Amino acid sequence: MWLGLDLVEEADASTLRRLFTIWTDDAAALMSGRGPLADTEPEMAAVTAGLTITFGVGPGVFDLTGITADRPGWLRPLPAFPSIDQLEERWRGTDLVVQICADSPLTVAHAQWVLLKDARSLARIVWCQKGFREAVGTEVPGRSMRNLFGQVDGTVNPAAGQDDPVVWMCASAPDWLRGGTSMVLRRIAMNLSTWEQADSVSRELALGRTQATGAPLTGQVEHDVPDLQATDAIGLPVIDTFSHVRRSMPHEHGGVDRFLRRPYTYDEGPSAHALSDAGLLFVAFQADLERQFLPVQRRLAEADRLNAWTTPVGSAVYAIPRGVREGEVLAEGLWR
Amino acid sequence: MWLGLDLVEEADASTLRRLFTIWTDDAAALMSGRGPLADTEPEMAAVTAGLTITFGVGPGVFDLTGITADRPGWLRPLPAFPSIDQLEERWRGTDLVVQICADSPLTVAHAQWVLLKDARSLARIVWCQKGFREAVGTEVPGRSMRNLFGQVDGTVNPAAGQDDPVVWMCASAPDWLRGGTSMVLRRIAMNLSTWEQADSVSRELALGRTQATGAPLTGQVEHDVPDLQATDAIGLPVIDTFSHVRRSMPHEHGGVDRFLRRPYTYDEGPSAHALSDAGLLFVAFQADLERQFLPVQRRLAEADRLNAWTTPVGSAVYAIPRGVREGEVLAEGLWR
Repeated sequence: MWLGLDLVEEADASTLRRLFTIWTDDAAALMSGRGPLADTEPEMAAVTAGLTITFGVGPGVFDLTGITADRPGWLRPLPAFPSIDQLEERWRGTDLVVQICADSPLTVAHAQWVLLKDARSLARIVWCQKGFREAVGTEVPGRSMRNLFGQVDGTVNPAAGQDDPVVWMCASAPDWLRGGTSMVLRRIAMNLSTWEQADSVSRELALGRTQATGAPLTGQVEHDVPDLQATDAIGLPVIDTFSHVRRSMPHEHGGVDRFLRRPYTYDEGPSAHALSDAGLLFVAFQADLERQFLPVQRRLAEADRLNAWTTPVGSAVYAIPRGVREGEVLAEGLWR
Repeated sequence: MWLGLDLVEEADASTLRRLFTIWTDDAAALMSGRGPLADTEPEMAAVTAGLTITFGVGPGVFDLTGITADRPGWLRPLPAFPSIDQLEERWRGTDLVVQICADSPLTVAHAQWVLLKDARSLARIVWCQKGFREAVGTEVPGRSMRNLFGQVDGTVNPAAGQDDPVVWMCASAPDWLRGGTSMVLRRIAMNLSTWEQADSVSRELALGRTQATGAPLTGQVEHDVPDLQATDAIGLPVIDTFSHVRRSMPHEHGGVDRFLRRPYTYDEGPSAHALSDAGLLFVAFQADLERQFLPVQRRLAEADRLNAWTTPVGSAVYAIPRGVREGEVLAEGLWR
């Protein structure tokens, strides 16, 4: 669950301090299975179900509160991608984001309620976006999740623990962000009705991978490295020039443009107007948004066969302060 | 996931036959881990995650199609309960319902898409209602689920396998429903904001159980039978006269009024208008709606302290035909 909030209009540095002080306590209590102070249903905190809560700061915080902490240059809306974007105001970037993840929807619902009600005099909700991955126990070991196009999604990712500089900011970041990261949240509508009409050849050409296993068209299994040089009998590239795999491959560009993809599926269900309202909450974490994320995003906007079936309808950028130790407050460098 | 659909206006018996012939094939394939005929993402059917699909027939089917099968007297909207109901047209009863349950949201989303697109020329969607229980692996063994009030919910239920006549219709039912059941689906909004203001004494008085364990106020553990005769030091009943437990207890009325409760939580998340839009999809199955379900519903509407915090906003009744063997079609007695 992603909650997008705006600070109240009269917010200043002390508003931020109070909000993050409360949220730090809440998150620590909820994640350790205790109900926070003001929790009237502490029993519901007992099942943590792997709960994690991640807080982010959007550009508006700097515009609004007059804090003097260093503002990173990238902390602003992404550049427009007019060839693909149809952004809707209701999914706009917000002053703050809270990402709540757990293996059980009940745990998420409770945490969400506690965090919202504790923030209500300091910030107001703009949107909530709910996503899911395959439930624990139903994943296929070693295989990335499937999205609603049936595609294996999120294969190319840094290895956990080995590629820390890809995700975490180092000494060159503003003080308050050192050890933190940046988050891009894009809501990408997927048109299941037109996708349904695409045959498997078109689908696999567009992606550059097979639907069945997620293997690149030049390989056998999902994690085989795509061979972008391979050609077929008549000399055409096996992995098409405008396929998603080729356009998004970091290896083609020296490998700086890597980042951590953590996509979730959203499905608002059918309505009288449409048989589906579904897609991807594309979430990316990276130390350097401009050098890592943006080049890939630009290549995809420029030409990616999958764009025929997908439409970005929401876009937001947040700075994610590092986690805290006992006694610290999340994001505290921001107002000090 | 519950999908409420209406038949197309020109529907007749053959529309029903075609629809249920397709849905029978789809459900059999999906539940056995194969993609149905028209499934363009058959890989997504491979993980069944305990998928079950249940189909129901609403009153409108008889009004619309001119079928001559026996119409059960109870297959109509519930009587109005003006003391509690604030029913919204958008959650009205529909001609058909499809209930899709699985341990993974991805499995549900795929099944939903397949069933909807295969029905699109025969029926149109009116609403979808999404609910959840505690995820597999996060349940507390032996304890019923918690709802968003923190209450242990659904304790008083017939034992699986031992109380079949409570749920399944026998020889006295219309032919096409023999071996089937009836479903009541009530959408009950729960006001988390006012509930939050109730102290634990008021909460437990209203329910008649402790919030911590779900034990009746006269007992130690959830499944202890409430002692409705017990009084406190000054002679007042320990389980209040207007508590939910006492009003809903079947034991008080000879035990005919038992049925299978299978509640799910819904949570549409916060919006700019309200900090929460959440509640219960109250689902009840019973062989005889009028003798089993209605007496309890009437007692609760008449006086149940929990009504102060809850509001029924949707209500629907469906007949659920029995499951089928190879070669049969769901509900086929309906048009024969």
